[in-house]
Amino acid sequence: MAVLDLAALHERVCSELGSDVVVRDREPYARDDGAEGPFLPGLVVRPRERAEVAPLVRLCHAFGVPLSPRGAGTGTVGGCLADHGGVVLDLGGLRSIVDIDERSMLAIVEPGVLTAELHRAVEARGLFYPPDPASLKICSVGGNVATNAGGPRACKYGVTGNFVLGLDVVDGTGVSHEVGHRSIKGVTGYNLAGLLVGSEGTLGVLTRCVLRLVPRPPFAVTLLASFADEAAACDAVHRCLTGGVAPAALELADRTCTELLARSGTLAVELPPGARTLLWVELDGDGAGLDRALLRAADLCREAGALAVAQATDPATRDALWDVRRALSHTLRAHWPKKISEDVAVPLARLPDLAAAARDIGARHRVDVASFGHAGDGNLHVNFLYDPKASSDIGERVDRCVADLFAATIALGGTLSGEHGIGLSKRPYMPLEQPPELRALQLALKRAWDPQNLLNPGKVFPPS
Amino acid sequence: MAVLDLAALHERVCSELGSDVVVRDREPYARDDGAEGPFLPGLVVRPRERAEVAPLVRLCHAFGVPLSPRGAGTGTVGGCLADHGGVVLDLGGLRSIVDIDERSMLAIVEPGVLTAELHRAVEARGLFYPPDPASLKICSVGGNVATNAGGPRACKYGVTGNFVLGLDVVDGTGVSHEVGHRSIKGVTGYNLAGLLVGSEGTLGVLTRCVLRLVPRPPFAVTLLASFADEAAACDAVHRCLTGGVAPAALELADRTCTELLARSGTLAVELPPGARTLLWVELDGDGAGLDRALLRAADLCREAGALAVAQATDPATRDALWDVRRALSHTLRAHWPKKISEDVAVPLARLPDLAAAARDIGARHRVDVASFGHAGDGNLHVNFLYDPKASSDIGERVDRCVADLFAATIALGGTLSGEHGIGLSKRPYMPLEQPPELRALQLALKRAWDPQNLLNPGKVFPPS
Repeated sequence: MAVLDLAALHERVCSELGSDVVVRDREPYARDDGAEGPFLPGLVVRPRERAEVAPLVRLCHAFGVPLSPRGAGTGTVGGCLADHGGVVLDLGGLRSIVDIDERSMLAIVEPGVLTAELHRAVEARGLFYPPDPASLKICSVGGNVATNAGGPRACKYGVTGNFVLGLDVVDGTGVSHEVGHRSIKGVTGYNLAGLLVGSEGTLGVLTRCVLRLVPRPPFAVTLLASFADEAAACDAVHRCLTGGVAPAALELADRTCTELLARSGTLAVELPPGARTLLWVELDGDGAGLDRALLRAADLCREAGALAVAQATDPATRDALWDVRRALSHTLRAHWPKKISEDVAVPLARLPDLAAAARDIGARHRVDVASFGHAGDGNLHVNFLYDPKASSDIGERVDRCVADLFAATIALGGTLSGEHGIGLSKRPYMPLEQPPELRALQLALKRAWDPQNLLNPGKVFPPS
Repeated sequence: MAVLDLAALHERVCSELGSDVVVRDREPYARDDGAEGPFLPGLVVRPRERAEVAPLVRLCHAFGVPLSPRGAGTGTVGGCLADHGGVVLDLGGLRSIVDIDERSMLAIVEPGVLTAELHRAVEARGLFYPPDPASLKICSVGGNVATNAGGPRACKYGVTGNFVLGLDVVDGTGVSHEVGHRSIKGVTGYNLAGLLVGSEGTLGVLTRCVLRLVPRPPFAVTLLASFADEAAACDAVHRCLTGGVAPAALELADRTCTELLARSGTLAVELPPGARTLLWVELDGDGAGLDRALLRAADLCREAGALAVAQATDPATRDALWDVRRALSHTLRAHWPKKISEDVAVPLARLPDLAAAARDIGARHRVDVASFGHAGDGNLHVNFLYDPKASSDIGERVDRCVADLFAATIALGGTLSGEHGIGLSKRPYMPLEQPPELRALQLALKRAWDPQNLLNPGKVFPPS
């Protein structure tokens, strides 16, 4: 890579946008919430208003300096890291909820708005923005769009992309575009908003998002069912998906997670003896219908062999149950010095096979493994847990676990990533899923948006 | 355009694929269900199996001959017509339902499968494929994907694109790609399936579709509410969308349509005096919940000023009501010699303004106008109705109606097309909605898929 003239760029940024947009402490930008890095960026710029984004991209374009857009930095695959040594563009300062149009059921927000902020704002108006990644209190809408983030409620409502109607975006040459529409439906020209969703900052920089909202479900209830094994829990997933209860979420925790939670005392309910898999079932809707769905879902779980089914209808107990589920990733981190977390997804029928494969792979390479996640979508977070100081070959064994997991996932008809994205971490495995012609086609699409290859260069696709 | 060497291509197609794939009678391919054409194609090829598609595209690529993929030919904007004089690739022979995977809740089908065939096949297994364009008995899944077709049930379930998980596609150089995934979620690489949906045959030729299915709702009921005017009906739409009844469909018919139906005697119910707007409300779900939703939806309509609310719970009456709705387009055709039909969409809040604007435009240019359609999505079929022999300037007046309608739609924050696509018919109006830079970006994306510009050249984007 050519030497980057960052000093000259820095000077021009200060003269055009003011020195306030330059962030002095670059250290916090060297990592995200995953294992990649540290990569200290050469320059960190944090626009105060969205009109500053296009001029900044134009400057990078003029100086040939690569830039990586960054939301709240909660990603797990290094997607927002400046491994190229150029600019990190921190969109966290663009945090305005521009409009909530109740009658049109849409919200217009800047990319730095936190997901939970948006939830609160629209729910106060009787509306609902379903996407709920576990990091919802600290992640941003822009990052959610860039990764097409999911979350438990994707089971009923769909992922972030299902709620993106339009996007304002700056391409790699610094030209601003408004893509998509503000109507619910729209097929005028190509589905550019759909293409940008999940493109991990490689095609354009988001400056505004037009999001579809739905009516807020008036009530919700939570079931926590415990099972002797994953196969029974997966059977309950199938029964709930097809049994007429329209679950808002179906979240599974495997034996490792379940035993950890049982010991931790953080669960609001007592688990029966022999409970080795947990299934959270969230139901939402209006009062009378919900009562019936609750009884029916509990029956469906019992038909699948549930050892116990606890119900939580009051908000405090429900929140407590969900906090435990959302904290699972951090709970694992507290018990093992290091954790490699994947988010593979398979066709629904193959979910039990995936759970079993993850366990077998851990056993084969003598690495602890814990799986949990979005069972209703066939999307499982498989975590390999270890102490890097435990043995000299542990790193190598974990690498083999990851490679075996991806190979098993592909063999099951699945995909490398259900919601985290590829970034840097999964890039080496792309050839397992996508042949060279398909990757070449995607890189050609990237050239149309970003002819100089300055937007998050090298992410997603492995160097050829 | 250079002279096309169709004779040489014809010969090579026969020698490589057999003369059986060449369709002798090209006449039926000169039109679709809209007003464009006739454009007699130079050659019509109808593959018998999907493996024949890539070799055919490679031959077109080698000979530099443009080709237009065609589904069932039920489109309305000329999207499948060979105005370039080259090849029409009829995908109607690829009609196999390859797999219905009940446990994974997905179907794999060839593009020529009729939408209604797919409905029947999956419903027999207790599953449901929601997209239901009015032409569902004669249109094909491939065409639905190419236009991102909607239909009444899009109100609750979303459009075709919401059900496309993966696509097998042949690009403009004849290379086959499998894009997307078979899991519910997947963010590995760019959302190419999402980009292909609605691309009107300009980026690739579909050879197989992986479609998500949902559980079949056990019961459905239909309400037909009548109102004194569109404003009241639009208010009922808003109340139903936000009132906790989760309507599967909300379909509106304006005064012209309502009076025509009242006179025709085809409606299964009697309309009250003063009824000048109709609203079909479809509800689906399980038994007890549905009964409650039915009462509630009827109340919501009455709160909005409904003059009468008829209920149909038995399948025969429901089908009769929906047949009338689906036949509206043909009913209008039977009463006016010529009909220009648009499918503009606006943000939900602007639906009453759109309906009023359509009426005003007709009055201003002295052209009959009838609007009906997907009120729950803000997507209205506005029809300009006339007799070409009525006056010497009628064609010009209708043209002005269309231009005014698009201008009004854009002014309301809407889009040119909600579900029919742009094709040839709406191409001249693209600059109203999308500036030159945005169109140039899309043409650059097309070059990545189709470097020689042979796939449906000139469709969607106006010549610069």
